[in-house]
Amino acid sequence: MKTDFQDLKPSPRVLLGPGPSNVHPRVLRAMATPLLGYLDPEFLVIMDEIKELLRYVFQTENDLTLPISGTGTAGMEASLYNIIEPGDRVVVVVKGFFGERICDMAERCGAQVKRIEVEWGRIVEPEQVKAALKDGGVKVVALVHAETSTGVLQPLEEISQMVHEHEAFLLVDAVTSLGGHPVKVDDRGIDICYSGSQKCLACPPGLAPITFNNRAAEAMRNRKSKGQSWYLDMTMVEKYWGQERAYHHTAPITMNYALREALLLIFEEGLEARFERHRLNHQALLAGLQAMGLEPFAQAGHRLWTLNTVRVPKSVEDARIRRRLLDEFSIEIGGGLGPVKGQIWRIGLMGYSSSKQNVLLCLGALETVFREEGYQLAAGAGVAAATEVYS
Amino acid sequence: MKTDFQDLKPSPRVLLGPGPSNVHPRVLRAMATPLLGYLDPEFLVIMDEIKELLRYVFQTENDLTLPISGTGTAGMEASLYNIIEPGDRVVVVVKGFFGERICDMAERCGAQVKRIEVEWGRIVEPEQVKAALKDGGVKVVALVHAETSTGVLQPLEEISQMVHEHEAFLLVDAVTSLGGHPVKVDDRGIDICYSGSQKCLACPPGLAPITFNNRAAEAMRNRKSKGQSWYLDMTMVEKYWGQERAYHHTAPITMNYALREALLLIFEEGLEARFERHRLNHQALLAGLQAMGLEPFAQAGHRLWTLNTVRVPKSVEDARIRRRLLDEFSIEIGGGLGPVKGQIWRIGLMGYSSSKQNVLLCLGALETVFREEGYQLAAGAGVAAATEVYS
Repeated sequence: MKTDFQDLKPSPRVLLGPGPSNVHPRVLRAMATPLLGYLDPEFLVIMDEIKELLRYVFQTENDLTLPISGTGTAGMEASLYNIIEPGDRVVVVVKGFFGERICDMAERCGAQVKRIEVEWGRIVEPEQVKAALKDGGVKVVALVHAETSTGVLQPLEEISQMVHEHEAFLLVDAVTSLGGHPVKVDDRGIDICYSGSQKCLACPPGLAPITFNNRAAEAMRNRKSKGQSWYLDMTMVEKYWGQERAYHHTAPITMNYALREALLLIFEEGLEARFERHRLNHQALLAGLQAMGLEPFAQAGHRLWTLNTVRVPKSVEDARIRRRLLDEFSIEIGGGLGPVKGQIWRIGLMGYSSSKQNVLLCLGALETVFREEGYQLAAGAGVAAATEVYS
Repeated sequence: MKTDFQDLKPSPRVLLGPGPSNVHPRVLRAMATPLLGYLDPEFLVIMDEIKELLRYVFQTENDLTLPISGTGTAGMEASLYNIIEPGDRVVVVVKGFFGERICDMAERCGAQVKRIEVEWGRIVEPEQVKAALKDGGVKVVALVHAETSTGVLQPLEEISQMVHEHEAFLLVDAVTSLGGHPVKVDDRGIDICYSGSQKCLACPPGLAPITFNNRAAEAMRNRKSKGQSWYLDMTMVEKYWGQERAYHHTAPITMNYALREALLLIFEEGLEARFERHRLNHQALLAGLQAMGLEPFAQAGHRLWTLNTVRVPKSVEDARIRRRLLDEFSIEIGGGLGPVKGQIWRIGLMGYSSSKQNVLLCLGALETVFREEGYQLAAGAGVAAATEVYS
């Protein structure tokens, strides 16, 4: 076997892809903190603080609010697997890669899945959801708030109203919005919502915040069959995170230290200021990219502040540009997934990564590479347009 | 909501419970390392190194060897959920808390579960397994190598032979043995084996190393039905960890940094030296505990080096002693689970926590507390007996 292992010294990256995003030095430092046991009285205080801070970012008073011990995908699975029972009718909006993933998981629960197909890059219209609900008997409507594969932000208010008129549950993926866009779980009547730690919360990947309102929690507790996952069974997880403190699995102590610190940074900044920062940096980056001749991919009026999607210009090669950004500027941006592979770039401005500095750096680096690759553009146009937004 | 959040400054603990164990400063430092993207060429090198180092500790050449993105319980679930299909006959040895957990998970896969019941604190005898196999048709035999709830180490050789004579798969939980006892996946013919990062590997909790041999991997790939977990579906996970590098979920970057550093520490120490360290410290601690009049719980000849179980003396109160150790000495030891709650203590000597210093400290602290609680014992007897083992 290999024996010449080197010291761990990865290149310092500017992470402007679809996640993970960069992490504040305070969060990194928190991760180097020595461990407590998972039932240590001091750790129990930390757990309670995390629950409280998660309620703040989810904008909810839901009692059942905690981080699942897995990545955002585990959060998706936990939300579906706890509410769906075999034979349940579930409507899934498929407007990108992650809606597709929800369908696959829902089918693995034995759900009868009805798909609402939407062109990638567009929102679902309330009428489409209405049509899917009209026959009645739907238990869950699942959709993605911020589609990481397309850069689209989905309005939820009207859909929420319809879903509840039909007495179904609204299940929302907020992986790329929580901490960057208002999620407003209570105001919007979202019944079940989950996210990931590594995007706008600016914590390393490995935890999935989740919240169930009382109605959803009751339905989950009163289900007829056992959930198909033991690890993600919220009826047991909630006993460890609640007053009983019953052992379920060993909590990822260090990841929870990190999440607490990342949430505290959000609390100190304030949600409104944080949203405004994300909005402004998005506006500046997009103005810069458009001034450089790049065309936005996501539907106008519904673009994420946290993840900017643009079409790859015809005269340059996707992978080559991304590789040069990484090798020469240590900047990571994302490529397209599935049907838009090679066709779009996904430039994340999430959490700690959403800064004026990163916007200007990204535009400057792109211009440098574009020029060398022979892509025609007006000198300094990108940075100039961004500067105008900031001034 | 609460607004007076304090700085993160947990008490420095001596972790001698059932896990997590203490972590080497190099591992803590690794966790403070800035993040890479999950497809960064530098991260792909780290992934390959982790696979190689995991093969070293599992003592296997299995290609499909990687860390699951969850705790040891997620590893248990991943091992069962990938191999079992609805209707499969599965034999589970129940000789503690974790065998019970395997039954619950196997039933959630739709398995026909046949339990072999063994008194807590004892091993299963090969004849019992033979009897359970005699009717044929068994697909999987699952058992725990190192039962964290009882402190028993299960011999595997004879059982492995029987299982393979019946063409079944041997599935082994090595959560509390990997990195502390020889697991010898290849020599013993273990088909599927999993562990947790936070015990003898001395890494924070949050990852579950797992390995499948070719026969098990083929069976998993050729299953008729989709596995019930998307997150833990090894047919997809292996494509991210293999040459295809197909996105499945965002790897917990920081946890993987930590695991790599913890595995490097094992590689540098050498497996044989590490096993001997665990053996010696166990022997010294047990000699000390016995000299203090404490009675071992686990069957003689089959006691774990990594987790020592003793009966709580009748004249003292379990929770009170553990609380005093924590409050006055910052030492965590574990209490009993399930039917032995309040009756036994579980004193872990795992990974970095397995040291002469901790053995002497633990015995000295116990003696101090015992005296103050009125438990009669010969002065200095525990430390003296341990010292004799070391000299």
